[in-house]
Amino acid sequence: MSTTWPQKLDAATLKTGSSVCVGLDPDPRRMPVPDVFEFNRAIIDATLDLACAFKPQIAFYEALGIPGLNALKRTVEHIRRVAPHAVVVGDAKRGDIDSTAEAYARAMFDLWDFDVVTVHAYLGRQSIEPFLGQPGRGVLIVCRTSNPGARELQDLRLQASSSRADVPGKRLFEHVADLAEEWNGRGNIGLVVGATYPEELGELRAAHPNLPILIPGVGAQGGDVAKAARAGADRHGRGIMVSSSRGIIYASSDPKSFPDASRKAAERLRDEIRAALASQNPADR
Amino acid sequence: MSTTWPQKLDAATLKTGSSVCVGLDPDPRRMPVPDVFEFNRAIIDATLDLACAFKPQIAFYEALGIPGLNALKRTVEHIRRVAPHAVVVGDAKRGDIDSTAEAYARAMFDLWDFDVVTVHAYLGRQSIEPFLGQPGRGVLIVCRTSNPGARELQDLRLQASSSRADVPGKRLFEHVADLAEEWNGRGNIGLVVGATYPEELGELRAAHPNLPILIPGVGAQGGDVAKAARAGADRHGRGIMVSSSRGIIYASSDPKSFPDASRKAAERLRDEIRAALASQNPADR
Repeated sequence: MSTTWPQKLDAATLKTGSSVCVGLDPDPRRMPVPDVFEFNRAIIDATLDLACAFKPQIAFYEALGIPGLNALKRTVEHIRRVAPHAVVVGDAKRGDIDSTAEAYARAMFDLWDFDVVTVHAYLGRQSIEPFLGQPGRGVLIVCRTSNPGARELQDLRLQASSSRADVPGKRLFEHVADLAEEWNGRGNIGLVVGATYPEELGELRAAHPNLPILIPGVGAQGGDVAKAARAGADRHGRGIMVSSSRGIIYASSDPKSFPDASRKAAERLRDEIRAALASQNPADR
Repeated sequence: MSTTWPQKLDAATLKTGSSVCVGLDPDPRRMPVPDVFEFNRAIIDATLDLACAFKPQIAFYEALGIPGLNALKRTVEHIRRVAPHAVVVGDAKRGDIDSTAEAYARAMFDLWDFDVVTVHAYLGRQSIEPFLGQPGRGVLIVCRTSNPGARELQDLRLQASSSRADVPGKRLFEHVADLAEEWNGRGNIGLVVGATYPEELGELRAAHPNLPILIPGVGAQGGDVAKAARAGADRHGRGIMVSSSRGIIYASSDPKSFPDASRKAAERLRDEIRAALASQNPADR
């Protein structure tokens, strides 16, 4: 039987002793060197033993046109070569009808070679299904995002399906997580839950003890690392990818020393997560 | 004052007498000629006087890698050259946090040169805002999709905000449409509502008389053209883009005559919409 991506994540977390996911969001206005691939390569080489995952955000490559997309392709190839343990997350947040979702799945897996892709669930199970058929691949369903405006739709309270008027309905994001669990027959679905909402993160972990969770929103977005790690980790202290992009890749603007600065930032994040989980009473997990 | 994209759509509908949007979803397994750009060019040239809009679905280009994306770029350039009246819709269904949405807006407008892009609203107003700042550009918010699984999330009934227990709450997709209206201060937001749900389409049009609506789901997906056109059109019989992809572009598999077959299919769709709207009592609109 082939390895699922959550199993790969578990092995990577054990091997590196790290739940850090390095977000590769190249922005020419901030990069200390001009070439996107050379920038990414330096970051990857400097952090690969500290990261269980790398996460290119496709928007940043698309914004640079064909040269950007070529750099994305070379970046994933480089990760495969030097860090075969690492889960490669394509942060694409796609969500479309079945025939289109099939085309996206071909793009994301066959072309870009991501292990797992972030997706929207608004179109229902059909729109996710095309991403679930390939061994070793899968999705992370956007559940509770890290931005301040997340509450606008995601916190909407649904009517209780129960006929008892005193039972409150779930919030939309909780229902999305329930659907993710329901659709997870092959064990290749996870959730995206922002670090900026540790309370909701903890509730989701309690309700879904086995779903892997991608946790963006630490660093530049202000999420508290220790709170998020404690709230999100599973009972083994794993099952999370705590993702930082700007905080790691733009740790220095010096063209010579930026890889070293990135390494130090990733190391700090790894240690903060470790310390938070070590100080947690296992019984609380 | 510069023209908004809904104004451009209105002018295009008047000029062509057509509410047809030609969906450009190139699939090498079905194309009668091998080259994506040559295929698209033949379709565009054959249908440009019958279409108020063209809609490349980005997934199909992404699935073909860099050559596919190059073909997309040339396709939009060709539309600009030969059919400057036509609204160019980038069917991308993006939806991400503000910094990423900014990168997507750069990609969609500055790089691909779409007039309007389909987006998911799950992350709230912030995630839409970066697409609303450029003159002549804007978004179509995914509201009610054409696929059978659309009901799973989109029909979820929300709790009434009213304190009166006898007032039922809205369904999620109705709330999304309300938000689109609320965010539409600059007049550059529209909705995506599938033809396969004419009843919901009619309800949305009644509630939002001025929002342009992209209506996918006729043709291969089985939506009834006449019902959808009547339900979706505004009080002037305009304000809609009835989108067919496979029904037009794969009307024939003959490498010689396929452009002509596409033209006939687009013509039939235009006439079906016209007939439906002509037979409608204006007072019913």
